[in-house]
Amino acid sequence: MEINKKIAEALNSVRERNPLVHHITNYVTVNDCANITLALGGSPVMADDINEVCDMVSLASAFVINIGTLNSRTVEAMIEGGKRANDLNIPVILDPVGAGATAYRTEVAKRIIGEVKLAVVRGNLSEVKTLYGIEVQTKGVDSGEIIDGNADEFTIAKEIAKDFANKLDAVVAITGAVDIITDGNTLYTAHNGHKIMAKITGTGCMCTSIIGSYLGSVDNKLLAALAGITSMSIAGEVAYDNLDKTKEGTGTLKSKIIDAIYNLDDKVIIERGKINEE
Amino acid sequence: MEINKKIAEALNSVRERNPLVHHITNYVTVNDCANITLALGGSPVMADDINEVCDMVSLASAFVINIGTLNSRTVEAMIEGGKRANDLNIPVILDPVGAGATAYRTEVAKRIIGEVKLAVVRGNLSEVKTLYGIEVQTKGVDSGEIIDGNADEFTIAKEIAKDFANKLDAVVAITGAVDIITDGNTLYTAHNGHKIMAKITGTGCMCTSIIGSYLGSVDNKLLAALAGITSMSIAGEVAYDNLDKTKEGTGTLKSKIIDAIYNLDDKVIIERGKINEE
Amino acid sequence: MEINKKIAEALNSVRERNPLVHHITNYVTVNDCANITLALGGSPVMADDINEVCDMVSLASAFVINIGTLNSRTVEAMIEGGKRANDLNIPVILDPVGAGATAYRTEVAKRIIGEVKLAVVRGNLSEVKTLYGIEVQTKGVDSGEIIDGNADEFTIAKEIAKDFANKLDAVVAITGAVDIITDGNTLYTAHNGHKIMAKITGTGCMCTSIIGSYLGSVDNKLLAALAGITSMSIAGEVAYDNLDKTKEGTGTLKSKIIDAIYNLDDKVIIERGKINEE
Repeated sequence: MEINKKIAEALNSVRERNPLVHHITNYVTVNDCANITLALGGSPVMADDINEVCDMVSLASAFVINIGTLNSRTVEAMIEGGKRANDLNIPVILDPVGAGATAYRTEVAKRIIGEVKLAVVRGNLSEVKTLYGIEVQTKGVDSGEIIDGNADEFTIAKEIAKDFANKLDAVVAITGAVDIITDGNTLYTAHNGHKIMAKITGTGCMCTSIIGSYLGSVDNKLLAALAGITSMSIAGEVAYDNLDKTKEGTGTLKSKIIDAIYNLDDKVIIERGKINEE
Repeated sequence: MEINKKIAEALNSVRERNPLVHHITNYVTVNDCANITLALGGSPVMADDINEVCDMVSLASAFVINIGTLNSRTVEAMIEGGKRANDLNIPVILDPVGAGATAYRTEVAKRIIGEVKLAVVRGNLSEVKTLYGIEVQTKGVDSGEIIDGNADEFTIAKEIAKDFANKLDAVVAITGAVDIITDGNTLYTAHNGHKIMAKITGTGCMCTSIIGSYLGSVDNKLLAALAGITSMSIAGEVAYDNLDKTKEGTGTLKSKIIDAIYNLDDKVIIERGKINEE
Repeated sequence: MEINKKIAEALNSVRERNPLVHHITNYVTVNDCANITLALGGSPVMADDINEVCDMVSLASAFVINIGTLNSRTVEAMIEGGKRANDLNIPVILDPVGAGATAYRTEVAKRIIGEVKLAVVRGNLSEVKTLYGIEVQTKGVDSGEIIDGNADEFTIAKEIAKDFANKLDAVVAITGAVDIITDGNTLYTAHNGHKIMAKITGTGCMCTSIIGSYLGSVDNKLLAALAGITSMSIAGEVAYDNLDKTKEGTGTLKSKIIDAIYNLDDKVIIERGKINEE
């Protein structure tokens, strides 16, 4: 319960500080990322031209790099923006969308990790394994593997996350049916969310953007990652509860997830948050 | 009625197989294309960098090429990806958005047809006529002509579709108030849908993406095209039926179309499908 | 009241003429811009490749330039398209998103103003001040300053708008809590809207697109700007009124704004329009 209160405080901090969160992200989910950032209380900006990325990063409280639809032009902007953010102590979060699916995507994600100091990496199990250096079978941008919270896989995933977090000196977050969030020392598992969220594109990207807003508001990257993941997962639950299952589906659900982030408050977080420290 | 049952079976096949559908598409409607693919039961991926398009196509069960916001960078990726798909016998569907509106767009669409073997082409009457080689007057990306199911135009459209399908050895689908779907031999007309769908951007693009999911799941391109068009048109009808006309409009309708695809089942298809074989 | 009637007539004109509105715009809000254009009664087209932009502009009744996610490739297309529009007497509207936030963005916006004759410029106070030549502090793409309708700032803003409109021989519209619309001679203040609209990305972009549709339908750029701003602001009010505040938020609100534009009619405009001529 104590951790839920800290998340609730972090949410209040986002709403007071209204952090500017710069994004270089994909064109599939960019609108939802912008709207969920606003709904949480942040202020999103998206700019990817090399001529302005450093200036825009300089204004921001956090920088989100999402490689969902990377191309050679935007990759350079990601790197340059990331370096500038590092110079200015602005936290950077990487969403390595689809790492492992193609050699190019894996190489770009590894290059970013090599050249930019990250505060947080958030991905699914396949993506994180790929970056950690384990070969995986992926299917496009969706994980080929599920963390179900019971299997040996889960134990291994936690070990990978911890070791990778220590190597990067960053928070590593692996999201799935159960989420793993660790700074290499403390490890949380988070148990909110609903499986229907995987039937909407961009719930991962939106989660990353939300973590970006928390990173821009609280001086604790582990709490920021945990707060972001828990906020998004609770929003999925609330949205699903509010769905008229007889005729509504994933189209309406997407709007309701943004609604739930907009209406998120202390009470909902404290009542619903299911987090274990291990 | 027999054909409706086959479409219902094809839908079940999509849901069992969860085909990966690679897209190079436009940035206007890309989010809706991804979400409707997920709602149907497919798994969308969008990647357009020349460095990874062939790798991504290799993982896919179908490849969607949509030229809605083409540019010189993505056109090369479309061609390279299409050739790789051909090598691997992965079906390719082309949506020649706006062909005829500008010389460049027409030329690119013709180049794709010349260099990539297509399984399906889906467009409106102006677009298909343009590709077939008849000069048309178009207005932007919307057809200047309507198939209303009665005029001589309709008879001509059916002839063009058949002849073009034979020339391409592909399925040609012309969508409008009445839809024409043919492999050059069998020709179906499909009579579902609602005219309000034209007031939402991307209903054509979403239809193409849905056909992509069917192409990735059933080994029958004519059935895939027919199933895709009928699914989308029925979803439009269901969504419109569920609309509160006193205060809701096209904003809510878009979400409800995705909802209707998510909730689509055998019963709805069999009850609502209006298909004639000619 | 007289002006509300003129706006209602302008709306009817959009619905009769169905103007093609060409856009070069950002990938964050492009889908919403297309859908709101359709909802109002226009026909949107988005194409930004230099190989086709002039051909596409030639077909259009108005041209919208929005620099929200500009890059070196699209900037050239904006300029070329704008010049072609000028040659053909097609009205051009500029949305200088984020001007002032980065040097590159300011420079591009000024270059467009220098090389393209504009019918309308619509921005927030920071953006317009920047283009006018006053140094401002901005925060990303959101204005750092609010027009609240009372302060001295408001008087200054009106002076800037008038002087800038005279210099450009264009309509200048500054949107905020109160909107200022002037051709340098007549000046209107518009008082519709709801502050929650700022919590949705793209309400400014959508407003610009709507003005584009009016520009393509009525031969009066001042009326077009006023009609666009008033339509968008009233839609925000209606959408907010239709929101179930106990569980709905900004996700649903966005759909309801498009719904409200779709359902906008004479009666709503005449009842709700709050415009003063000063």
